Amino acid sequence: MRIRFTKMQGAGNDFVVLDETRQRLDLSPAQYRWLADRHFGVGADQVLSVRPSPAAGVDFEYVIHNADGGEVEQCGNGARCFARYVRDSGLTSRDTVRVKTLSGVIEPCLNADGRVTVDMGPPVFDLPSVPFDAAGLSPHADGGWQKWHLALATSAGSPIVPVAVLSMGNPHAVQEVEDVDTAPVLTQGPLIETHSRFPKRVNAGFLQMVGRSHVRLRVWERGAGETLACGTGACAAVVAGIRLGRLDSRVDVQTRGGLLTIEWAGGDAPVFMTGPAVTVFEGEIEIPEQP
Amino acid sequence: MRIRFTKMQGAGNDFVVLDETRQRLDLSPAQYRWLADRHFGVGADQVLSVRPSPAAGVDFEYVIHNADGGEVEQCGNGARCFARYVRDSGLTSRDTVRVKTLSGVIEPCLNADGRVTVDMGPPVFDLPSVPFDAAGLSPHADGGWQKWHLALATSAGSPIVPVAVLSMGNPHAVQEVEDVDTAPVLTQGPLIETHSRFPKRVNAGFLQMVGRSHVRLRVWERGAGETLACGTGACAAVVAGIRLGRLDSRVDVQTRGGLLTIEWAGGDAPVFMTGPAVTVFEGEIEIPEQP
Repeated sequence: MRIRFTKMQGAGNDFVVLDETRQRLDLSPAQYRWLADRHFGVGADQVLSVRPSPAAGVDFEYVIHNADGGEVEQCGNGARCFARYVRDSGLTSRDTVRVKTLSGVIEPCLNADGRVTVDMGPPVFDLPSVPFDAAGLSPHADGGWQKWHLALATSAGSPIVPVAVLSMGNPHAVQEVEDVDTAPVLTQGPLIETHSRFPKRVNAGFLQMVGRSHVRLRVWERGAGETLACGTGACAAVVAGIRLGRLDSRVDVQTRGGLLTIEWAGGDAPVFMTGPAVTVFEGEIEIPEQP
Repeated sequence: MRIRFTKMQGAGNDFVVLDETRQRLDLSPAQYRWLADRHFGVGADQVLSVRPSPAAGVDFEYVIHNADGGEVEQCGNGARCFARYVRDSGLTSRDTVRVKTLSGVIEPCLNADGRVTVDMGPPVFDLPSVPFDAAGLSPHADGGWQKWHLALATSAGSPIVPVAVLSMGNPHAVQEVEDVDTAPVLTQGPLIETHSRFPKRVNAGFLQMVGRSHVRLRVWERGAGETLACGTGACAAVVAGIRLGRLDSRVDVQTRGGLLTIEWAGGDAPVFMTGPAVTVFEGEIEIPEQP
């Protein structure tokens, strides 16, 4: 089967985007894996398929397949690329598009500067919901909020790492560091990820405060290692900084993959993430029946 | 600048191929780097630019740029993709094409089955030329040839690894293993690569004999770590096996990236490598002036 595709990236998180608005491709998991393979296929973190929505008042739906061929929940980077794609390819003329995803209906909004804003939902602070097992631990007050002291067993001893704990739909442990360039992301990341206090593991954020509206961030992602830009990680880090009293309500986050802007009004308000969505190239490929 | 390109792979070693036969693109090192970047550009191990040759009797020339933007010598996988590309794109109607590379004029040959055969040059056994520092060491006779016993300092002690040593234009240390799947490629590879007996470091081959004309191979490449298929590594492993008396003159080599067939008549004869060269997709991309 010969198909056209578009390669896109949002802060370095990259996607093969397939237009299935006119015809369903019905790819097999092996074919998704092959498309995402960086040596034998096109190569991408994920494959994003855009389809018409059968629901009233919803413009599209999309599904995202991981490089392992399995379907995954929506991520902020994919939502941004989707919004840019349907606009640039003429599938819609709107700036705000209602789209059904595995996580529900969302409304990414294309800004005048080409960046896209996505509602990432409200943060969750209830510890059992994160989930975080705080049994026998006492929180340490810090600014307007609290941190938890995690002991990490390393070959160099057992350093104590103070982290803020919250969920953005997935669990996050955020620590402040002096300088992200020299932060122990690769050594502490896997230890925090698998710490016994987090029964579903956790994403480990390393946050450097540059000013009240500007931070630098590296994230060790659960199951993926360090990534170029973790959307929910940027949201979690800024929410933590705001609750601790160190950040304003609108913050630029410099990640290794690009700049994200995070806004949060506090309380039960949703977190808004604004970031780049870039078309890298257009291509045409023959997909093998059985890769 | 908007250009068309072709993405190809040979045994998993992948290339962005640019047609500069009608017009020179004059890309900067930063633009090569960007094209090879797997998240922000097209993504490839290397960029291969096909140009007309000014020399009499030579059909084309090509240059290969690495993912770091620097120009590199030709490799067997690139030569195969080149031959397939000029034929499939109609730039030539010949099966054998003379092409100038940084390493001299070569003549890759397109077979009827779509695979391509490349003359990889003769093996070099002279130890100072490899280069291998054998001062104070005695070789151990094995079959019709010899092996050298390397001591590797590891956390589990100092295992002695018997290796055959030769050059295919670059240095190789080949050891036999029972099973490539369980061979200590990732632990021993870096120790062999940087062993003090190899002043210019070395590629470490792990060779499993399946029969006299069939082997399995993994290679830890100098400066690159384990790769899907190392062309010179396959040549070196088969030449070593032939000289040791364990292999016939034509051998199928199963690598992680695909099947290569190596032929060597012995002595000063060149080594011929036959392998796949596959067009993966065609694309069109806008290259930033200053990525």
